[in-house]
Amino acid sequence: MAGNSIGQLFRLTTFGESHGIALGCIIDGVPPGLLLNEVDLQKDLDRRRPGFSFYTSKRCEYDKIKILSGVFNGVTTGTSIGLIIKNNDYRSEDYINIKNIFRPGHADYTYKKKYGIYDYRGGGRSSARETTMRVSAGAIAKKYLKEKLNIKIYGCITQIGHIKCKIKNLTAAEKNPFFCPDPNKINKLHNFLKTIKKEGDSIGAKITIIVKNIPIGIGEPVFDRLDADLAHAIMSINAVKGIEIGDGFNAINLKGSQTRDELTNNGFKTNHAGGVLGGISNGQYIILNIAIKATTSIQKPIKTLNYDGNETIITTKGRHDCCAGIRAVPIAEAMTAIVLMDHYLRYRGQCFDVINNT
Amino acid sequence: MAGNSIGQLFRLTTFGESHGIALGCIIDGVPPGLLLNEVDLQKDLDRRRPGFSFYTSKRCEYDKIKILSGVFNGVTTGTSIGLIIKNNDYRSEDYINIKNIFRPGHADYTYKKKYGIYDYRGGGRSSARETTMRVSAGAIAKKYLKEKLNIKIYGCITQIGHIKCKIKNLTAAEKNPFFCPDPNKINKLHNFLKTIKKEGDSIGAKITIIVKNIPIGIGEPVFDRLDADLAHAIMSINAVKGIEIGDGFNAINLKGSQTRDELTNNGFKTNHAGGVLGGISNGQYIILNIAIKATTSIQKPIKTLNYDGNETIITTKGRHDCCAGIRAVPIAEAMTAIVLMDHYLRYRGQCFDVINNT
Amino acid sequence: MAGNSIGQLFRLTTFGESHGIALGCIIDGVPPGLLLNEVDLQKDLDRRRPGFSFYTSKRCEYDKIKILSGVFNGVTTGTSIGLIIKNNDYRSEDYINIKNIFRPGHADYTYKKKYGIYDYRGGGRSSARETTMRVSAGAIAKKYLKEKLNIKIYGCITQIGHIKCKIKNLTAAEKNPFFCPDPNKINKLHNFLKTIKKEGDSIGAKITIIVKNIPIGIGEPVFDRLDADLAHAIMSINAVKGIEIGDGFNAINLKGSQTRDELTNNGFKTNHAGGVLGGISNGQYIILNIAIKATTSIQKPIKTLNYDGNETIITTKGRHDCCAGIRAVPIAEAMTAIVLMDHYLRYRGQCFDVINNT
Amino acid sequence: MAGNSIGQLFRLTTFGESHGIALGCIIDGVPPGLLLNEVDLQKDLDRRRPGFSFYTSKRCEYDKIKILSGVFNGVTTGTSIGLIIKNNDYRSEDYINIKNIFRPGHADYTYKKKYGIYDYRGGGRSSARETTMRVSAGAIAKKYLKEKLNIKIYGCITQIGHIKCKIKNLTAAEKNPFFCPDPNKINKLHNFLKTIKKEGDSIGAKITIIVKNIPIGIGEPVFDRLDADLAHAIMSINAVKGIEIGDGFNAINLKGSQTRDELTNNGFKTNHAGGVLGGISNGQYIILNIAIKATTSIQKPIKTLNYDGNETIITTKGRHDCCAGIRAVPIAEAMTAIVLMDHYLRYRGQCFDVINNT
Repeated sequence: MAGNSIGQLFRLTTFGESHGIALGCIIDGVPPGLLLNEVDLQKDLDRRRPGFSFYTSKRCEYDKIKILSGVFNGVTTGTSIGLIIKNNDYRSEDYINIKNIFRPGHADYTYKKKYGIYDYRGGGRSSARETTMRVSAGAIAKKYLKEKLNIKIYGCITQIGHIKCKIKNLTAAEKNPFFCPDPNKINKLHNFLKTIKKEGDSIGAKITIIVKNIPIGIGEPVFDRLDADLAHAIMSINAVKGIEIGDGFNAINLKGSQTRDELTNNGFKTNHAGGVLGGISNGQYIILNIAIKATTSIQKPIKTLNYDGNETIITTKGRHDCCAGIRAVPIAEAMTAIVLMDHYLRYRGQCFDVINNT
Repeated sequence: MAGNSIGQLFRLTTFGESHGIALGCIIDGVPPGLLLNEVDLQKDLDRRRPGFSFYTSKRCEYDKIKILSGVFNGVTTGTSIGLIIKNNDYRSEDYINIKNIFRPGHADYTYKKKYGIYDYRGGGRSSARETTMRVSAGAIAKKYLKEKLNIKIYGCITQIGHIKCKIKNLTAAEKNPFFCPDPNKINKLHNFLKTIKKEGDSIGAKITIIVKNIPIGIGEPVFDRLDADLAHAIMSINAVKGIEIGDGFNAINLKGSQTRDELTNNGFKTNHAGGVLGGISNGQYIILNIAIKATTSIQKPIKTLNYDGNETIITTKGRHDCCAGIRAVPIAEAMTAIVLMDHYLRYRGQCFDVINNT
Repeated sequence: MAGNSIGQLFRLTTFGESHGIALGCIIDGVPPGLLLNEVDLQKDLDRRRPGFSFYTSKRCEYDKIKILSGVFNGVTTGTSIGLIIKNNDYRSEDYINIKNIFRPGHADYTYKKKYGIYDYRGGGRSSARETTMRVSAGAIAKKYLKEKLNIKIYGCITQIGHIKCKIKNLTAAEKNPFFCPDPNKINKLHNFLKTIKKEGDSIGAKITIIVKNIPIGIGEPVFDRLDADLAHAIMSINAVKGIEIGDGFNAINLKGSQTRDELTNNGFKTNHAGGVLGGISNGQYIILNIAIKATTSIQKPIKTLNYDGNETIITTKGRHDCCAGIRAVPIAEAMTAIVLMDHYLRYRGQCFDVINNT
Repeated sequence: MAGNSIGQLFRLTTFGESHGIALGCIIDGVPPGLLLNEVDLQKDLDRRRPGFSFYTSKRCEYDKIKILSGVFNGVTTGTSIGLIIKNNDYRSEDYINIKNIFRPGHADYTYKKKYGIYDYRGGGRSSARETTMRVSAGAIAKKYLKEKLNIKIYGCITQIGHIKCKIKNLTAAEKNPFFCPDPNKINKLHNFLKTIKKEGDSIGAKITIIVKNIPIGIGEPVFDRLDADLAHAIMSINAVKGIEIGDGFNAINLKGSQTRDELTNNGFKTNHAGGVLGGISNGQYIILNIAIKATTSIQKPIKTLNYDGNETIITTKGRHDCCAGIRAVPIAEAMTAIVLMDHYLRYRGQCFDVINNT
């Protein structure tokens, strides 16, 4: 299958380049009967928007989403939903100077070699702007999951560079420009990012996703496990370099007697598993950690090659984030929602009799 | 789609329970013309086999693989390949005592709740024995990739508990029971695992996968990126809790000026990306790190629930690994091979004209 | 995707050649909780078996099916079901003389040209023996659909050569070797086929499938319509050259005022649609007609080419049906059941809320 | 998988309702390097357009197609192509009177029962207007197949009502409003349709598709056979009630000695198979016949039910074709092209080595 789709029963397919006419997507498999309008989608889009704060890109792309189909009288009809965002504020002239030069750390090199042709303007198809469609589809999934099952998906920043943030208050994470769940660290992050920006550099970040109220039974072994599909969806986000569930890489250091979660009359006593056992949700919180690399579009010059194979020096102008991880929070939430929604529909399909008997 | 398949053009579908009559699989999409016999598969199966060493399970399951179709006169025909391994040496009586009890850290709980019924014997479908089929399919992929493209896939253990092993010698990793690429650490690992075993406990491990000679252009953005599909495939292995590519979680600490790989006349100067840019292979080594949790089938008793919801104490008898990560090395290699093979076929399908023009 | 699978949520993947070691399949997505044993499958296998009557091939292949996984204590567990039939009674020597010769009307030519290699023995992968797996998977689907929804699938022969049979008695069709629903025609068919056989020739046939008690709502527009997926499944059977639903080709001659089915308080007044409107079942009988060509393995000599491109004469020996359409009846029923089952699960997945609200 | 997609490597996903804001689609898997602009698509769209002639609907919907992505400097880039057509000329008021009434022969009844909600305006999602996207995607496939492989796909009308047209001149079919390949029949068709129109009625039609220059080897047994996938694609078009390949339903009457195509030094002597053997193209013309029912939107009143289950009388006003089969010609060509393109890419993926060795 060509690679621009994700999901089976709840299926997102996207199109669009950074500086093309428009970006769009089709979401197939949305159950009928869900109240839905553009405001539902815009809320999450605004959270990922550059220009949202000082620390994310100043590019004033106003991601105004339009629903083109699949909703009738404010309610989903069960048919495919088409969404579109027009591209207005692109400055392709920022990219003219680099049109024949590979930007290190970007997809320029691999797209050009693979396809023989590459839309260099703003990263073309490989631009993070494509994630507007993920966020929009995720907003639909989130809304359904919340209204029907009370499932809640929280994303926050738990580390930027060397600064770690504890998860003290998940709702507070929504009220600061860093999605930081640790109010004491906000000043520190502010100062750190100011320095990074002044240096013309950028920095990596860690995102944590927590899902609450997930029913038991979501996930299809042996390959389409819930954790495996989450790993796929998360790793498909630009700049993600690692994904953990539950104990993650700390599991290497732990003994079996430390990692198994005791089961009592009051439920599980711990959550080393991170909410998934054998690829199936166990009713506990799903906990994911995600590593985001620093943007490589920075103002510091670096050696590279042009299309003819000659060495040259490149400096990215444009408007770019100094910590792309921040904007990636709603994207990671969206991908989580898409996977959960898809698996929930699959679960209903196969286990209808079990669900209706209990 | 039901969850027992992986891949699009090169597609593996598996069946079988730990203590059932047999395990088997169908591999669809193997290109015609590949020399193939059972010895090709058995080699890798023997590497994952319990009983292979003191540190892995003593269960003497002789995984004798049989090719049932798709090969004619020793050559693949392009039709689907059926494989089977009969189950001979199972001791279901080991499991009689725990037939109505959920084993903490296992899939018992989630399978039972999801499906309403669960084959408890040896973990049933959730048993690691299912991975024999992954290893077999992987062996076919590995053979094709090596013979046609000289792609080589290496797996090794780079950490067990607190003991870290450097990658000093990849071929040496094949010659010790730990897949350890650092000959100096073999004794240390030996003693450490002996202690763990004596305690009736188990321990986590870290696996590193390195792929050499991968051509540029493999991977399908934006969702079926090579790294995303590798994350999916690896995370679908039992007990995997984390996956990294290139810098992985260390990317959180790095600046953009540190992570972008400079491109020179002599190729890339560094490999922070881990061989993938924008979801497409860039010709560098692909480097993956994998976190494996400790087996939770250990001899230390733990509180749990039975099917009726009452608390009880469980102690796993059976024969189990004290470090499951060791046996997971050939499995992780196999999953890597399956993903690469699938993506290579997809790449040929879409980019045939580009390939044949260069 | 490689081509040996069918279905999305209820998914059949098959392997095996006519004269290989075994044929088998994996059925993924069978809901848990269905009582199932080998007798359930064997019944339908026996209906398609050659040797079943004088008019079908004498080859005494005893298709003994074995369930290898996915059933525990006589009940499906929701995991993938592996099935196998060993090949015992093949006489490859029948094929030695024609090993380098293309049999006109067979797949020999296209398989050899496509794959560069071809298992010529008994048609290899292109043999109708592969349909044993379709019939087995179909038996599971039929059983589920009947037990849970009272859906009944009837297949019968409505024409052989110039002899047309009316559907007078569907259950009578089970009690004669022609699946003929018109008891008055049995003698006529008997004599006609005796003549065909004596000539060393073969003849085409028409199959009609009728499905009763199908709920409203099955089918996924706009591409995976129920009728479209039925057409796909039926046309994937060897020797099928045409498929109709409802009015079929007679619709060409009819006016709009004649084809629309009036809707009254007592339901639809007619069934020109054949049970499907806009790709979705409307609760009426589903009615399909299927054209099956005559077997081309006949004893009359014909000119052809050998692998070297030289002309030669071929006469098929072996044991072959003089009317393959007869044996195709249970196969067509099976493919119908597989499609209905798959779509029913998909319907439950997406429309769970609608189903549970009514 | 939700049902609004078709194809594996070349994949079309559509959205949009008849009277919504816009219709659109995403075509994923278009190989890079194809010259493509909107005129390429518009040509085929104009052929299917209502208002194209007296005999098709007068609705002056000007289907102006816009390419939103996937093309850079006039060349496809290998990324997903987004297409859109805005809806301007809809007259929803035509439908106000029937908003709670099921139109017999339409999808109203099944959509409403399945999804619980239905956009009744112009048939909503079930409108034939959705086929604009099929035609557009088909135009891309046709262009690629023609430029790279010289494959040519011809569609024509071979019967309307009782009037049969011989295929005398395929290019002449393009030059009359009936796609009629038999110049002598044009007047007869003209008069017949005038009568039908005057009666306020409509009539069925038969389409024939002929594909020339198809290479040997396209098609994936055993389920995704070329003929099976063509049957699926064609049957997914509104109003199609039957599909034949080669001999089709006439095969019922033929003996094996009559249907097998003799293979000589000069190629096949006949083409009973219709270009496909064992599901794989054999290099001969692919020949398909398609039965299209008469539109049921006619001016003659009929009894039906409203949403409350009460009987009522309905008369379709609106602007409708008196022979929908005519407009379906370019749609059937498009679906044929989409299937061939998809299978050609799959063939290249799996059989790359065979192709490059010959």
